[in-house]
Amino acid sequence: MQVLPLPFERLVRVLGRLPGLGPRSAQRMALHVLTKPEIMGDVLRTMAEAAEQLRICQECGNLGVHEVCHICADSTRENAVLCVVEGVDDIWAIERSGVFRGKYFVLGGVISALSGITPDMVGVPRLLARVQDLGVQEVILALGASVDGQTTSHYIADRLEKMGVVATTLAKGMPVGAEVDYLDEGTLKLALEGRRKL
Amino acid sequence: MQVLPLPFERLVRVLGRLPGLGPRSAQRMALHVLTKPEIMGDVLRTMAEAAEQLRICQECGNLGVHEVCHICADSTRENAVLCVVEGVDDIWAIERSGVFRGKYFVLGGVISALSGITPDMVGVPRLLARVQDLGVQEVILALGASVDGQTTSHYIADRLEKMGVVATTLAKGMPVGAEVDYLDEGTLKLALEGRRKL
Repeated sequence: MQVLPLPFERLVRVLGRLPGLGPRSAQRMALHVLTKPEIMGDVLRTMAEAAEQLRICQECGNLGVHEVCHICADSTRENAVLCVVEGVDDIWAIERSGVFRGKYFVLGGVISALSGITPDMVGVPRLLARVQDLGVQEVILALGASVDGQTTSHYIADRLEKMGVVATTLAKGMPVGAEVDYLDEGTLKLALEGRRKL
Repeated sequence: MQVLPLPFERLVRVLGRLPGLGPRSAQRMALHVLTKPEIMGDVLRTMAEAAEQLRICQECGNLGVHEVCHICADSTRENAVLCVVEGVDDIWAIERSGVFRGKYFVLGGVISALSGITPDMVGVPRLLARVQDLGVQEVILALGASVDGQTTSHYIADRLEKMGVVATTLAKGMPVGAEVDYLDEGTLKLALEGRRKL
């Protein structure tokens, strides 16, 4: 039996595919935006604006408002240390800790034998090219403490060693199984300061 | 320090005001829709379509695609029994139980002395007019089992009694403190069947 009006059900289905929303919370959210036109307007406007104005940085994969993000464009930041992260939100988490003054590289995922994700599918070749271009001396592998994250770190460390580049990884202090962007700033600070050679 | 790009931060702030989303989950969601353009397109399109196509029923306050919703327009449904609910989602929950064959009235809230919400601010005068228009003989008060919900039920029951209309309320079976739209279908069925005179 068709209980919900069709346009509403379509909206609930689309919202229900977003991360963190189930069918029930998607329905609540849909009803909320539909009954409050000013909120709906805000959502539509800010979303379209963000999509139009945001660019993915050509250099590192960060999100910004220019072709090259403000971190890559910042001449006061060191080229000698490059921090490799899985996603853009990991950059933000590390930036909030305020302790890192080098540049970043967004891998866009981790190598996963189970899911069939190879080094080429995440940005490993682009990363190695970038390391050469910038003349990087140390690469900090700030990937998640999951099996796939650690495997990826070791794979990249092997490749970097052959290029004569030091690979380090975030210090213990990061709880096993956690994701970088969920860490609090204090733990992240400790982890960055206590990084060790892989 | 400005860590997030401004258009992104604006989007996170707007999304963070939606029910069930905090700053962290709003950021996840914003990043998800921005990095997957097809999902962003779906969200923008279905939301705009829903806003354009959905109407609030002139008779009962339900959400539908016509001026009068499919329940009010359905001549096989009884006019003699009217079910009063707090919100549109409560109608959907009761419709899913499949046991009610009368019509609905969406109150749009409950009377609350603490929040200063008077009978006139929720739809009580419109409800009483509707009861007279339809020639309703029984009003089922399917409001939440909260203090405000119960107060509202008793207030409406008093007014209906003076008009010679029977007021009933959902049977025990509804756990104290629960909201109508969170009940499972079996409990709702029991509660509708076991309703008693207030």
